[in-house]
Amino acid sequence: MNLEKNHPGKLFILSGPSGAGKGTICKALLDQTDLQLSVSMTTRAPREGEIHGKHYYFVSEEEFVANIENDGFLEHAQVYGRRYGTPKAPVIEKLEKGIDVILEIDIQGALKVKENYPDGVFIFILPPSMSVLRKRLTGRGTETPEAIEMRLGETLKELSFIEKYDYCVVNGELDEAVTRVKSIVVAEHSKVTFTAEELIRKYEEE
Amino acid sequence: MNLEKNHPGKLFILSGPSGAGKGTICKALLDQTDLQLSVSMTTRAPREGEIHGKHYYFVSEEEFVANIENDGFLEHAQVYGRRYGTPKAPVIEKLEKGIDVILEIDIQGALKVKENYPDGVFIFILPPSMSVLRKRLTGRGTETPEAIEMRLGETLKELSFIEKYDYCVVNGELDEAVTRVKSIVVAEHSKVTFTAEELIRKYEEE
Repeated sequence: MNLEKNHPGKLFILSGPSGAGKGTICKALLDQTDLQLSVSMTTRAPREGEIHGKHYYFVSEEEFVANIENDGFLEHAQVYGRRYGTPKAPVIEKLEKGIDVILEIDIQGALKVKENYPDGVFIFILPPSMSVLRKRLTGRGTETPEAIEMRLGETLKELSFIEKYDYCVVNGELDEAVTRVKSIVVAEHSKVTFTAEELIRKYEEE
Repeated sequence: MNLEKNHPGKLFILSGPSGAGKGTICKALLDQTDLQLSVSMTTRAPREGEIHGKHYYFVSEEEFVANIENDGFLEHAQVYGRRYGTPKAPVIEKLEKGIDVILEIDIQGALKVKENYPDGVFIFILPPSMSVLRKRLTGRGTETPEAIEMRLGETLKELSFIEKYDYCVVNGELDEAVTRVKSIVVAEHSKVTFTAEELIRKYEEE
């Protein structure tokens, strides 16, 4: 008997400031576990090699707006005139099948998801220190020192949302951070979420 | 920076019906992790090879009763005229040093511990099925078939306390059960138990 298998899947939200490494952790989890990625919907055009339903659901402005009106998003936002969102239906479908879903998202997005799906498991990925974060952002070579300092200031502000999260994982060593998230997944599936009556019925059956 | 290290240790209570295998899981955890065992206090005489402070704290009836009167137990009970209890002081001392403590105990004991230390992490160890439990109890060869059937009836009743526990771990494969408890330990140390202010202060310091 495996009690867990009778529970629906769980939605794990991996979130945190830019440069904390949530994307890298997410990729490692997809490689090493049965977790499935939540695919975003967008109105931007596909880039070369991007596959509809894998990288994004590419839709028209009309389709996107219709989905908003149908309350079809866990969260959605507009960036430089393009719309991005997390469609509810494919996530719920997987959860009902008992599949765990992972959603990698920034802090603003995660807070919206929490409003729509408070049963999600919210994990905040933290950089080991501000100086390490500064190094990582500088290493990307995509921003000026001034822009990086501004971003670091924003990061400190973003930390104030930590209390909305269930778990926090410091991403110093990638392997250790990944192992920690995997442990959270296992522990979440070991929580007592059934009644004594349900449990006794199961054991009496055998 | 390691946020976890600033938290005190945690008390993990491993409990469940007789034959579920909590003792075996506990031994494996002590071998494989830094968890330290909570040592019981008893008024029974030491058996050959038993060491005071390792296997038990061996004390006189007077000392035991004095400790009860000083509210010095997380739980205590009397079995065939001998007293057994979990002394508070050594557990709290370890937790304050940041050491995780494991306490292996029957269900009645665990419920008393919960009253005295609700911050403990309560883990219910379950046998995979009643038929497996019957086999395990029969395999011990220490009880008559009638006694075993009576014990199985008691087990079903004991399952009704599952809702008092935080986690449940089905002990089918020992290694898997041990890994699951280890994951619970890691996840518990990844919980957000600090305030945003505390977190921001830490990051600003560096």
